[in-house]
Amino acid sequence: MDRSRLETFSDGVFAVAITLLALDLSVAGPGHGSLGHQLARQWPSYVAYAISFFTIGIIWVNHHGVFQALARVDRVLVFLNLGLLFFVVAIPFATSTMASYLNSGGADAHLAMAVYVSVFELMSITFSAIFLWSMRRGMLHSPLAPADARRAIVRFTIGNLAYIAAIGIAFASPYTALVITGLVAVYYMAERTAAPELEQAGRRADS
Amino acid sequence: MDRSRLETFSDGVFAVAITLLALDLSVAGPGHGSLGHQLARQWPSYVAYAISFFTIGIIWVNHHGVFQALARVDRVLVFLNLGLLFFVVAIPFATSTMASYLNSGGADAHLAMAVYVSVFELMSITFSAIFLWSMRRGMLHSPLAPADARRAIVRFTIGNLAYIAAIGIAFASPYTALVITGLVAVYYMAERTAAPELEQAGRRADS
Amino acid sequence: MDRSRLETFSDGVFAVAITLLALDLSVAGPGHGSLGHQLARQWPSYVAYAISFFTIGIIWVNHHGVFQALARVDRVLVFLNLGLLFFVVAIPFATSTMASYLNSGGADAHLAMAVYVSVFELMSITFSAIFLWSMRRGMLHSPLAPADARRAIVRFTIGNLAYIAAIGIAFASPYTALVITGLVAVYYMAERTAAPELEQAGRRADS
Amino acid sequence: MDRSRLETFSDGVFAVAITLLALDLSVAGPGHGSLGHQLARQWPSYVAYAISFFTIGIIWVNHHGVFQALARVDRVLVFLNLGLLFFVVAIPFATSTMASYLNSGGADAHLAMAVYVSVFELMSITFSAIFLWSMRRGMLHSPLAPADARRAIVRFTIGNLAYIAAIGIAFASPYTALVITGLVAVYYMAERTAAPELEQAGRRADS
Repeated sequence: MDRSRLETFSDGVFAVAITLLALDLSVAGPGHGSLGHQLARQWPSYVAYAISFFTIGIIWVNHHGVFQALARVDRVLVFLNLGLLFFVVAIPFATSTMASYLNSGGADAHLAMAVYVSVFELMSITFSAIFLWSMRRGMLHSPLAPADARRAIVRFTIGNLAYIAAIGIAFASPYTALVITGLVAVYYMAERTAAPELEQAGRRADS
Repeated sequence: MDRSRLETFSDGVFAVAITLLALDLSVAGPGHGSLGHQLARQWPSYVAYAISFFTIGIIWVNHHGVFQALARVDRVLVFLNLGLLFFVVAIPFATSTMASYLNSGGADAHLAMAVYVSVFELMSITFSAIFLWSMRRGMLHSPLAPADARRAIVRFTIGNLAYIAAIGIAFASPYTALVITGLVAVYYMAERTAAPELEQAGRRADS
Repeated sequence: MDRSRLETFSDGVFAVAITLLALDLSVAGPGHGSLGHQLARQWPSYVAYAISFFTIGIIWVNHHGVFQALARVDRVLVFLNLGLLFFVVAIPFATSTMASYLNSGGADAHLAMAVYVSVFELMSITFSAIFLWSMRRGMLHSPLAPADARRAIVRFTIGNLAYIAAIGIAFASPYTALVITGLVAVYYMAERTAAPELEQAGRRADS
Repeated sequence: MDRSRLETFSDGVFAVAITLLALDLSVAGPGHGSLGHQLARQWPSYVAYAISFFTIGIIWVNHHGVFQALARVDRVLVFLNLGLLFFVVAIPFATSTMASYLNSGGADAHLAMAVYVSVFELMSITFSAIFLWSMRRGMLHSPLAPADARRAIVRFTIGNLAYIAAIGIAFASPYTALVITGLVAVYYMAERTAAPELEQAGRRADS
């Protein structure tokens, strides 16, 4: 399997999933109270839309970073990638559920938030698996220096631990869990999980 | 018609269809019983989502395998491919119908499961037709050895027979039919329908 | 504007539109009569899905044929192409409206069918405009022989006239109009609007 | 990050967003008044669909123009591009809300129109930011002459000012604001924001 068609297909899934997120923004229409009130009441939908949009966006950026560094793709990686997309595709559902229950309070709000962060954590785990598998099996254009590999693993671990903490916290305070999930997105926009070294390796190989 | 635009279009359809699957996961929202209860009650949706997702994923992987081995594409193949996509696009509908009727019991559950597996079988038949047509018309980069061609045909036949059996069994036990459908997906993740030999022929041609 | 990104974008729109068609197949779920009855009652949806799917599929095939023959793309062509996509995107709406009104009888069924065929006719007109503009402005790799150009124009005209006839007939017998629309799809699967000569010109240029 | 995968992903998002616009055209079906009446009553949906479709189309054309002129892409540009797509994806929601409230009159119609134009303005601002960032950071194949850069900035400013004016006017007359929004689309179809000089620079670099 060549790298480029795997990227085209994954880009398609990322693009559709990220666009479906916005379907949840719709209001009920005339006759359901003033529009201003309707728009204000669904603020969790906007926050959820923004966090999910940029989290998918970042995963896409990092996905690109890893795949650009790959010299070849084996069958296991193809199915690990399908596993990643499996959770990416579930994000619009998790986002919409979280947004509609966030303000309902009680056990439902806790559970909805825990489900939301869990989907992110599962996506993050499969992404880590893609990175580790391609590194261990020597599928990169040029192997990472041990220090670089360690740095990349530390970055993955930070995100994974933050999500796991947020899942636990969701059962005490869903709002705090939501803030943590947003902060993970901000963290990954600043720090690159896919290791800058990896991207450079990919760039050298492509030119 | 060159191969690459056919692949781009097909990848787009696969990507949209696989993402639309998750639309069916949505819950009714606050005021329809506890969220935990709602999520638990719709377990058939998760199973259906997983089986349909990985079945489309596998067809996509095998589609890629066959097209990579093609030296040229004729007009019949273009329309056979449209036929394949016709059934791929129907999978979200079949999945959602099956999931909502599975636990309703009786004739409706039987029929919904039979429709679900039938769409898979029709997809499988058109995929087999694509493979056979391109092989018989000499459109491959390098012809398959007779033994390899036989092995590929055996693999297709196993999947087709399993689906046909599952359609019949659906009218006795939809749950058993569902398990068989899932096992076909697992079987094709381990065994490659599109014949490893085919993929190697494609790889030789591309490099 | 280079040809390839125009094709990628158009392929994306074709792929999403063709996949959204199937959203209209969904049944109401348990508690709305037997599933068999529900599935049987919505036969217009299946017919509409099949005709719309293959009509979009054929336009995509012919779109590819024309664009492959283009040596360059000007700004007018970019907007003519947007015009074509404008009507392609409206097809799922027109299909779903036609399917839900076909059996309602009377003026509504007539109007729904006329709207359905009109969207096809508008799509067909913009496609003809793309072909004529690129031919007249000398944007093809190699100019068509006058006889070939005439043949292509005859093929376009046949489809356009058949659609216009079907729009009129829709107000007398929507079922007859539906059959004509289906026959146009079959005609274009056999005969190529985009002129085989055009495709050959494109192939010579690409290799 | 290489330019081509950024373009593929963006094209996918543009294609899905532009196609989802048409979901809002759907009518309620038999039993909700005559079809002719239903279709006529929802004329704001057609106008909204047309304006949003061509506005997204033009942004896509100009997006292509800018990216074709880029010699390289940095991380800031990747996230500016995600910001642009964030607002593109919100357009179907804004379009559907505007269309359903336009004829409701009073404060709701004003607010819905202001939200609609605001999403366009935010999209326009992020697009301007992409253009300015890539120009200032010297990421173009060949730098723009000062006069050309000024001309491009004037074109951006005209659109941005027109949108800002339309947001204010929306609170007095939503219909006037709608007309202005449509005129901006027409203006950008005639005049190219992305500067013809930019596109020529891109073409020189690609050939």
